[in-house]
Amino acid sequence: MRPFALLFLIGCSLLPAAAVAQQAEKADPLMLTKIRDEGMDRSRVMETAFYLTDVCGPRLAGSAGLQRANEWTKTQLAGWGLTNAAVEPWGTFGRGWDIEKSYVAMTAPYYHALLGAPKAWTPSTSGPLKKSVVVVKAATEADLDKYKGQLRDKIVLTEVANPPKTTFEPDARRYTAEELKKLTETPAAPTTAPDTDRMAARRAQLALRAKMADFYLSEGAAAVLSTRGGSDGTFFTSNGAPYAADAKPVLPEMEMAPEDQLRLIRLAEAGIPVEIELETRTLFQTQDLKGYNVVAEIPGTDRKLKHEVVMLGAHLDSWHAATGATDNAAGCAVMMEAVRILKAAGVQPRRTIRIALWGEEEQGLHGSKNYVKNHFADPATMQVLPDHAKLAAYFNLDNGAGKIRGIYAQGNAAVAPIFTDWLKPLADLGATTVTLRNTGGTDHLSFDAVGLPGFQFIQDPLDYGTRTHHTNMDTYERLPADDLKQASVVVATFVYHAAMRDQKLPRKPQPPAGKPQ
Amino acid sequence: MRPFALLFLIGCSLLPAAAVAQQAEKADPLMLTKIRDEGMDRSRVMETAFYLTDVCGPRLAGSAGLQRANEWTKTQLAGWGLTNAAVEPWGTFGRGWDIEKSYVAMTAPYYHALLGAPKAWTPSTSGPLKKSVVVVKAATEADLDKYKGQLRDKIVLTEVANPPKTTFEPDARRYTAEELKKLTETPAAPTTAPDTDRMAARRAQLALRAKMADFYLSEGAAAVLSTRGGSDGTFFTSNGAPYAADAKPVLPEMEMAPEDQLRLIRLAEAGIPVEIELETRTLFQTQDLKGYNVVAEIPGTDRKLKHEVVMLGAHLDSWHAATGATDNAAGCAVMMEAVRILKAAGVQPRRTIRIALWGEEEQGLHGSKNYVKNHFADPATMQVLPDHAKLAAYFNLDNGAGKIRGIYAQGNAAVAPIFTDWLKPLADLGATTVTLRNTGGTDHLSFDAVGLPGFQFIQDPLDYGTRTHHTNMDTYERLPADDLKQASVVVATFVYHAAMRDQKLPRKPQPPAGKPQ
Repeated sequence: MRPFALLFLIGCSLLPAAAVAQQAEKADPLMLTKIRDEGMDRSRVMETAFYLTDVCGPRLAGSAGLQRANEWTKTQLAGWGLTNAAVEPWGTFGRGWDIEKSYVAMTAPYYHALLGAPKAWTPSTSGPLKKSVVVVKAATEADLDKYKGQLRDKIVLTEVANPPKTTFEPDARRYTAEELKKLTETPAAPTTAPDTDRMAARRAQLALRAKMADFYLSEGAAAVLSTRGGSDGTFFTSNGAPYAADAKPVLPEMEMAPEDQLRLIRLAEAGIPVEIELETRTLFQTQDLKGYNVVAEIPGTDRKLKHEVVMLGAHLDSWHAATGATDNAAGCAVMMEAVRILKAAGVQPRRTIRIALWGEEEQGLHGSKNYVKNHFADPATMQVLPDHAKLAAYFNLDNGAGKIRGIYAQGNAAVAPIFTDWLKPLADLGATTVTLRNTGGTDHLSFDAVGLPGFQFIQDPLDYGTRTHHTNMDTYERLPADDLKQASVVVATFVYHAAMRDQKLPRKPQPPAGKPQ
Repeated sequence: MRPFALLFLIGCSLLPAAAVAQQAEKADPLMLTKIRDEGMDRSRVMETAFYLTDVCGPRLAGSAGLQRANEWTKTQLAGWGLTNAAVEPWGTFGRGWDIEKSYVAMTAPYYHALLGAPKAWTPSTSGPLKKSVVVVKAATEADLDKYKGQLRDKIVLTEVANPPKTTFEPDARRYTAEELKKLTETPAAPTTAPDTDRMAARRAQLALRAKMADFYLSEGAAAVLSTRGGSDGTFFTSNGAPYAADAKPVLPEMEMAPEDQLRLIRLAEAGIPVEIELETRTLFQTQDLKGYNVVAEIPGTDRKLKHEVVMLGAHLDSWHAATGATDNAAGCAVMMEAVRILKAAGVQPRRTIRIALWGEEEQGLHGSKNYVKNHFADPATMQVLPDHAKLAAYFNLDNGAGKIRGIYAQGNAAVAPIFTDWLKPLADLGATTVTLRNTGGTDHLSFDAVGLPGFQFIQDPLDYGTRTHHTNMDTYERLPADDLKQASVVVATFVYHAAMRDQKLPRKPQPPAGKPQ
């Protein structure tokens, strides 16, 4: 899931009367039971999650880990009997990037190994460095003036915006019944961008950061240590440079655990000489600048409907300092398990079911956006391709490893009663809620942007916001098996319903060309 | 605080009637106000904590960091006007030990830097190693047989007893009024060792571990990676070898974040070749095997009472993977701040006030035990020295960085109403509770063992048990300034009262010789 996505809960029109005409449902109750039994009693979702996380490793856009994951998932899906399994290029992404060495320690006033990771797409240090530090505090470009001539051959320490605090709130939580109810009741927020001030501030901050990066480089600094937040050994990561093949150079940079960064800053500001030993070795891959998605199908069996498609997906790429377990091996493992369950249960779907594991989501939903553009429609022009008419539904999962509590109907009032109906037999698993609200930040938006019915499930937050989302601690341990089993059953059930019913899912009115995503 | 100390809440006889005869109190109300103002409005406790943690660094028994802390605290206490400031040897401790390099990464199946720290008193690797791994699972010595001949030149991965779980409880908490009430009401537990089964199991476990360490060494393994627990980037640390000058050799060993250890184990157990790159360089200091305490005094001014002493203390040593902020720079900073406050407020104490910052507490209360033996009495023989009669009280602080909520009267029924009286004007600061209960695990026990009135304060637990106690994340960030200020005022008030009242604090009956501590 992309940064800030959790903030983009944009409201929409209210739920209409429950009397919305429903299409005939062709779900076989026996098959629903088989799906549930397979998912609950013979689950392989944790095994899949193990391969995606531990075996493939971190899966940054364009990295060797993502390539491993592309190959492994394609092979695994084909091995489960899916057809047309392929690693499908979506267009040009940019440079791949991998870490080959990462080491940082304080060597004066005493030795202490430090906790950090190279920012994505930053270059290597020229071998092991041992350098003294300068703390740079700048709220504006003008503030940089006083550091002119001070940074040559130094390691720059940037400020810590959010120091860790003792927390009296749990890291992980589940939605309460009250919160779920509120999700369905809260009046719709305006559909225009809700907080332009915040977005403008964010743009200004990014622009300042770019200027600072240029300044450090032009002043001849050796490297940068920065921090994006976290606590207790958890730290957040991001990209420190553009991934484009022609991106301009930046300095080597490590993102640090805030406790370590703050210690260095406190010491330096107290006038105590601080020396850092630093070695990063990063590898840029420029042979293949393309980005990829992995797709595979369970072919439809109904003569009239088999050319229609029900899609389900999640993004396969992750950040680089951990194995991207909740963001989003969890979603991929669940989606893969859902199609495995459907195969194992012997489903003969009327429509074709297609799983897509998206590449480069973290860098801007690139995989899904371009897939939609290549297969369905260009949101800029709203020129639609023939397959646009054939997509029955797209289901996405990308809010961590928490069990599914319901679904965002994404402002599609006509679909809400259908989902409500599908959820009824899943109530004992905790999946009950249909909200008309939009939710943002992930790949269903790519479909929604061109008027296709794309949906994201509501999931228990667990420790996604505090510990796992884009951190160095997004590891296999953060995946509760019971939650992933439940989610697999819910997704398999939804996909089965969508593949069997007489009609495709109802759509919202076609959006105008160039609608912002 | 030593491991398992929190478990040793040993009960005692019930509070007697409130009509216990009280000694005349000579506290000047104006002075109590001055103490409070100085501690709350002109606090320097965080500055002291910064020097103890960031500047001195980790302060393992016998380490260079502890030597720095000994020198700095002595100088600082003298600088505040205390007299007789000294770094006082208590006897023979053993070898000092410091880390000069610590690096561990997985290099196959892909590169990933790992989070860990050398176990205390383990030797260096012979330069950087690159080795494959063997997972060793053994519940008994016999289980080791199957690994014979399998370990040569390998890195041994030991099991993870407590894998991290998603937690729905807050890391940090404060005592509720109800919990504090319960502390005073709970019936006394038996005074004999409460859980001999648990202690026997613990001894058996330690014996097995020692056998395993011998086995790895004799089989020619290259190093060991183990884990003691933790989560989310927090990991617990301990010592991996005896510190005695003639201790037998062990292998280099790193204590790992459980997430990293578990990933390595899962990969290896799935048959995927795992390669580790490891370099530790540790330095043994054998020139000076002595252990030390730091002491300093505010001299008494009453002709009759100035030869009597009120002591306050906390241990200055810590573990090595962090800067020992809550265990126990917090306690030292508060005790130092308390004497600074008393000096700044212009207290002319009737008795002499002596602060002691103990060495080698984490290795068995060595500093305080030997100080007591050298100055007051030998618990084995109960031969008392002349100063035994002169100690009015000893106050200790070693339960983290939480504010003081009251005091453990340590089974001393006669002292309880006196403490209750002293706490009254501190109620608005949250310090209200006197419990007759014993609490264990730290340096007041050394006094209690020879019949001297030694007491430990009740503190809010905060995140001591979950995040800081003996972890790599026991850093300055874990110290809430308001809590340390409050604690400083409470301690200064208690010490002031004890230095001014007509009589020394009442004592429990003299214990028999050789009473177990």
